[in-house]
Amino acid sequence: MTTASATPKSPRRGRPGYDQDSVLEIAVRVFNRHGYDATSMGMLAEELGVSKSAIYHHVPSKGDLMRLALDHALAPLEAIGESEGATSGSTIERLEFVLRSTIAVLIERQPYVTLLLRLRGNTDIERDALRRRRAVDHTVTDLVVAAQAEGKVRSDVEPRTTTRLMFGMINSLVEWYRPDGPASPAQVEETAIAMIVDGLRARS
Amino acid sequence: MTTASATPKSPRRGRPGYDQDSVLEIAVRVFNRHGYDATSMGMLAEELGVSKSAIYHHVPSKGDLMRLALDHALAPLEAIGESEGATSGSTIERLEFVLRSTIAVLIERQPYVTLLLRLRGNTDIERDALRRRRAVDHTVTDLVVAAQAEGKVRSDVEPRTTTRLMFGMINSLVEWYRPDGPASPAQVEETAIAMIVDGLRARS
Repeated sequence: MTTASATPKSPRRGRPGYDQDSVLEIAVRVFNRHGYDATSMGMLAEELGVSKSAIYHHVPSKGDLMRLALDHALAPLEAIGESEGATSGSTIERLEFVLRSTIAVLIERQPYVTLLLRLRGNTDIERDALRRRRAVDHTVTDLVVAAQAEGKVRSDVEPRTTTRLMFGMINSLVEWYRPDGPASPAQVEETAIAMIVDGLRARS
Repeated sequence: MTTASATPKSPRRGRPGYDQDSVLEIAVRVFNRHGYDATSMGMLAEELGVSKSAIYHHVPSKGDLMRLALDHALAPLEAIGESEGATSGSTIERLEFVLRSTIAVLIERQPYVTLLLRLRGNTDIERDALRRRRAVDHTVTDLVVAAQAEGKVRSDVEPRTTTRLMFGMINSLVEWYRPDGPASPAQVEETAIAMIVDGLRARS
């Protein structure tokens, strides 16, 4: 192991007990509980039951932990926009595909997306993540605009506001979804899509 | 002024320059920017350009600032459920009234509701606020259940999940709504209600 040349992006810097992913998992839990600003490397070391230097063995800094954790949320969200379901079919089908896929990522990567959604943009790392998040949102706004132009989405809603509200609904999942809650991931997905696309009103 | 007998609940403990409300307004801004845990009374004093003892003149502790700030969000939200629009009329009308009124409070009290919605429940004050927030949510779930029983809300959605998703959509406002944004408060309200009640799909 050549610490001098190791970069924060190197996969797994081996050490018995913890690998980088499990350090990351615990760091994200502590960031979400206390906020990134209030979390020190000393607090992380205590949570992991190791010395501070043992953490530095895996990642050079708290900022690198943050950057890695945010990428765990952003990479799969960015991948949705490039997948076939998002680039072929009718605009309304593509919109529904993107929303369903986003719900799946949020449930699968819940703690990492929680961290992403709570960012305040206090550091360059946070601002870079927020920029990537806005780009993801933008592709959805484009789909709403396109579906509206085709007459498939009602014309009386403002696309950017609509995107914000849809993501507001879907993103809230990370704050309240629990695997042992009253609804399965599939039920949550169906309820959200039903409400967004057709609304709550009963139709005969 | 009798500091010895003054309680955190006493209205306005006068001092030239700032009153309790303006100290509160700035405290909430700092809490929202850095997180409650990471904010010290020293940071607040610096932001206000006064000494720490000048802050203690207005409120006995950081916890009291938090409690007062959270009450600024919770009191008007609790009042909605007791108003006439929420207690008379058909269940679907009452549901729509509660959602519209909630949107209005969120826009009106944006920084205070932001603080409320970001709570992690680390202290008794936070847990008490979360308990009050859950009670508000509960009255909405009851309305969804009642509207479903009357056949006015589609039967294939789970009421608790539906409530969470509706509040997720509406609550997201505090994170992105800007008075100078593309939509007015009335347009945001109409778009949210249109989506929740009737969905995005265009109907001929």
